[in-house]
Amino acid sequence: MTGAGAARIDLNGDLGEGFGAWRLTDDDGLLEVLSSANVACGFHAGDPSIMRQVCDTATSRGVTIGAQVGYHDLVGFGRRRIEMAAQSLTDDVLYQIGALDGFARAAGSQVRYVKPHGALNNTSVHDELQAGAVIEAVVRYDRTLAVLAQPRSQLGRLARDAGLTTVEEGFPDRGYLADGALTPRDRPGAVLSDPEQVAGRAVEMARDGRTTSSDGSVVRFRPGSLCVHGDTPGAVTTARRVRDRLETAGFRVESFC
Amino acid sequence: MTGAGAARIDLNGDLGEGFGAWRLTDDDGLLEVLSSANVACGFHAGDPSIMRQVCDTATSRGVTIGAQVGYHDLVGFGRRRIEMAAQSLTDDVLYQIGALDGFARAAGSQVRYVKPHGALNNTSVHDELQAGAVIEAVVRYDRTLAVLAQPRSQLGRLARDAGLTTVEEGFPDRGYLADGALTPRDRPGAVLSDPEQVAGRAVEMARDGRTTSSDGSVVRFRPGSLCVHGDTPGAVTTARRVRDRLETAGFRVESFC
Amino acid sequence: MTGAGAARIDLNGDLGEGFGAWRLTDDDGLLEVLSSANVACGFHAGDPSIMRQVCDTATSRGVTIGAQVGYHDLVGFGRRRIEMAAQSLTDDVLYQIGALDGFARAAGSQVRYVKPHGALNNTSVHDELQAGAVIEAVVRYDRTLAVLAQPRSQLGRLARDAGLTTVEEGFPDRGYLADGALTPRDRPGAVLSDPEQVAGRAVEMARDGRTTSSDGSVVRFRPGSLCVHGDTPGAVTTARRVRDRLETAGFRVESFC
Amino acid sequence: MTGAGAARIDLNGDLGEGFGAWRLTDDDGLLEVLSSANVACGFHAGDPSIMRQVCDTATSRGVTIGAQVGYHDLVGFGRRRIEMAAQSLTDDVLYQIGALDGFARAAGSQVRYVKPHGALNNTSVHDELQAGAVIEAVVRYDRTLAVLAQPRSQLGRLARDAGLTTVEEGFPDRGYLADGALTPRDRPGAVLSDPEQVAGRAVEMARDGRTTSSDGSVVRFRPGSLCVHGDTPGAVTTARRVRDRLETAGFRVESFC
Repeated sequence: MTGAGAARIDLNGDLGEGFGAWRLTDDDGLLEVLSSANVACGFHAGDPSIMRQVCDTATSRGVTIGAQVGYHDLVGFGRRRIEMAAQSLTDDVLYQIGALDGFARAAGSQVRYVKPHGALNNTSVHDELQAGAVIEAVVRYDRTLAVLAQPRSQLGRLARDAGLTTVEEGFPDRGYLADGALTPRDRPGAVLSDPEQVAGRAVEMARDGRTTSSDGSVVRFRPGSLCVHGDTPGAVTTARRVRDRLETAGFRVESFC
Repeated sequence: MTGAGAARIDLNGDLGEGFGAWRLTDDDGLLEVLSSANVACGFHAGDPSIMRQVCDTATSRGVTIGAQVGYHDLVGFGRRRIEMAAQSLTDDVLYQIGALDGFARAAGSQVRYVKPHGALNNTSVHDELQAGAVIEAVVRYDRTLAVLAQPRSQLGRLARDAGLTTVEEGFPDRGYLADGALTPRDRPGAVLSDPEQVAGRAVEMARDGRTTSSDGSVVRFRPGSLCVHGDTPGAVTTARRVRDRLETAGFRVESFC
Repeated sequence: MTGAGAARIDLNGDLGEGFGAWRLTDDDGLLEVLSSANVACGFHAGDPSIMRQVCDTATSRGVTIGAQVGYHDLVGFGRRRIEMAAQSLTDDVLYQIGALDGFARAAGSQVRYVKPHGALNNTSVHDELQAGAVIEAVVRYDRTLAVLAQPRSQLGRLARDAGLTTVEEGFPDRGYLADGALTPRDRPGAVLSDPEQVAGRAVEMARDGRTTSSDGSVVRFRPGSLCVHGDTPGAVTTARRVRDRLETAGFRVESFC
Repeated sequence: MTGAGAARIDLNGDLGEGFGAWRLTDDDGLLEVLSSANVACGFHAGDPSIMRQVCDTATSRGVTIGAQVGYHDLVGFGRRRIEMAAQSLTDDVLYQIGALDGFARAAGSQVRYVKPHGALNNTSVHDELQAGAVIEAVVRYDRTLAVLAQPRSQLGRLARDAGLTTVEEGFPDRGYLADGALTPRDRPGAVLSDPEQVAGRAVEMARDGRTTSSDGSVVRFRPGSLCVHGDTPGAVTTARRVRDRLETAGFRVESFC
């Protein structure tokens, strides 16, 4: 059952995470499964040609385009926190949104939401200054853009305070700590790779508003979007399995905007 | 005489040509004199914070914003030709326009024209492939953008063929060869620095549609815009002298769009 | 027969061609087969951590380390010619050699040769100015470094003129034109992927001093080193097949220096 | 009195802090006054051509060359802390030392010491992990290199523990807090610009082993080198005044190595 009356859930993934001769994500494969594409904008990954290709394909398949904004740190893939002034960060984020929006609009679509990548996303959970800098960029660029944020994050709180559409996100292929934070990548259980397990957790998150943390306790939240990672082998298979199980459970997989 | 009935001429200059801790142009000073600002977009110069500052100031002073697009070559300041595929160049140019437009729109304005920088501009005079790649980016982004091009250039021809508003440009502070090309920077007489001489040439270009080449012959063209360089000491003084002399000669200095 | 009296041939390959989170070459696999490693130095590919890893592994396996120097063009992977002043190119090449030599020396080895990458290598075949700039860097850095050059190239000629050890190189996995140049990558037959065919051509080059061009004519040269590409699927398998066939043909695969 | 029996003090400054078309420091002017040049290595500032020029001039004037190593953050000028793994930082530092050493050796000199720049220097005061990563790079590259460190810093302590020559540094043109740390740049009194005041503080540091903090208390340390900043207008004048006053006070200004 995936008709008009069905509950709706968004499936997002990080795309366009190559650079020059290098590729990390199977963009074409993932764009057959996802409803929302977080497109890297050239600061931690992505280059103009990749961005154009992803925007063109996403648009032709009706996948919603979001700006996956990150620190200006290509060699670190945006996974290293940079201490920077709020104004500089706002400027960096706005630059990235604008650049991607150019390709989205040329393709006949537009950027509809913003999601921080890697260390910027982690920092935005608890760091009010950096989270606020991201929100300020969204507000300055276009107040109709949505923000994809982790539950209980400063980013989500500030987005709501600014009157922005705010969508909470679940990560069925990532482990959770008891306090609802993601298990850091250097600890065991940080990344789950079994497609069935990931798909099962996705359904649990979407249907029951909860997941199980690494110590067995229950973490509760209401995700409007589920993120599946694209930078692992088998990413497309896992994403497809997640989508199938969600649809079997009665969800209509489609963008939140 | 600078009233509504006066002939109109645009005065453009390259702005925002710093990066991080470095500055090259007196952006604030030039924005008091110019009618159009060619803003560097981060590929050969410019960073998000500089772009934001220039867009904010330009908008508050009513100066028209154009995208000064260049090769992705920061260390070479965009002054070295790169052999690249047309599609890649189109993507690079579109990225730069979009990024700048984000800041222009956030400031309450928008990008209204495109001008290639340095080696890309020189290449666009005679290289149909690269000139066409620049035009393709403009067409894909927004057909209402104007193109600032050298007279008799492939860039100008292709812009007109594509139906774009095309404005020919004169360089009163650069020497010309007999065939109308700019004197290459490594030859004597390539750059003129005397403000009176530059201002005199500006008036001659605007009023008489001609200038004198290095060998004394006459070069004829009808510039809709005159470019004064901002990356030299005394750039603001020269720009102001050019503007004063143009206004004294009866021109109204204002943007072509 | 691979004893001390056997003829000797070097087997080189491009290694370390990743950046940050991205990888292109199976460095560990190739270092089990090659006698010389052309290590990317950070300008077109390679980052400090990758360079350190390749130098450490190469040293522990007795593989000779060479500097694979390229244009400063990460997004273009060094495959786009840049028009640049000879002095700038010399400085860029010297910087890359020095940076790699730091890791080689820290590992207990040292850089022993230089090989240009991609467009710089192609340009060095015919462009005396750029070829000379590369040679000038080698001369300034260390006159005992060898240069790996294509037969009949300006690079090889200028290296010999400067008194440098010069090793001519064959590409058994690339097609040749009748004049001895490599078939450009955008033409059919530019890259050969069948391991047996590549291995057969390698033996022909090493033993007979010749190969067959795309139009069937014979190209004659005396390679001291054969290059196998590492950025293709099956690169390690092909390299191993080449090495096996060369050893079976009586060659001792070892570095030229 | 500046004879052989005189007390000795080193005068160091940051040089080569330009990039491409941009300049920040008057390298030629400063190299007439300083005894040690901290040369930027391309990560936070500096490019191969600038590095070559500074190394050539420094060598011809007998100025000692040191590697001014920084975070890989050109747009932030190395003034923003990056959270990074120790191994990555060690690799980055080693890369920079090697690259600079190539130019120093080509000029007939060599890198003789290492000094972290900006945020890396500040971080190295208290952060054992990052300070240790810098020291590890020095140890791996060449144990005879000295380390220029702030008094009471983790960097200095770890350098001494590793058996490296360690020179403590004073900043006569920077304010100090009561605990001996430098006054952060965003506070009043962080940077002193009066040449006489700076020169007076330099003599006090060198002769009396002390300076006065912003709250009037005395900070005691024994600098082997005094740093004057080159990125301010009047930097050369100030540096010359410092040198003159030190020589008048009986010091011989020369490198510590």
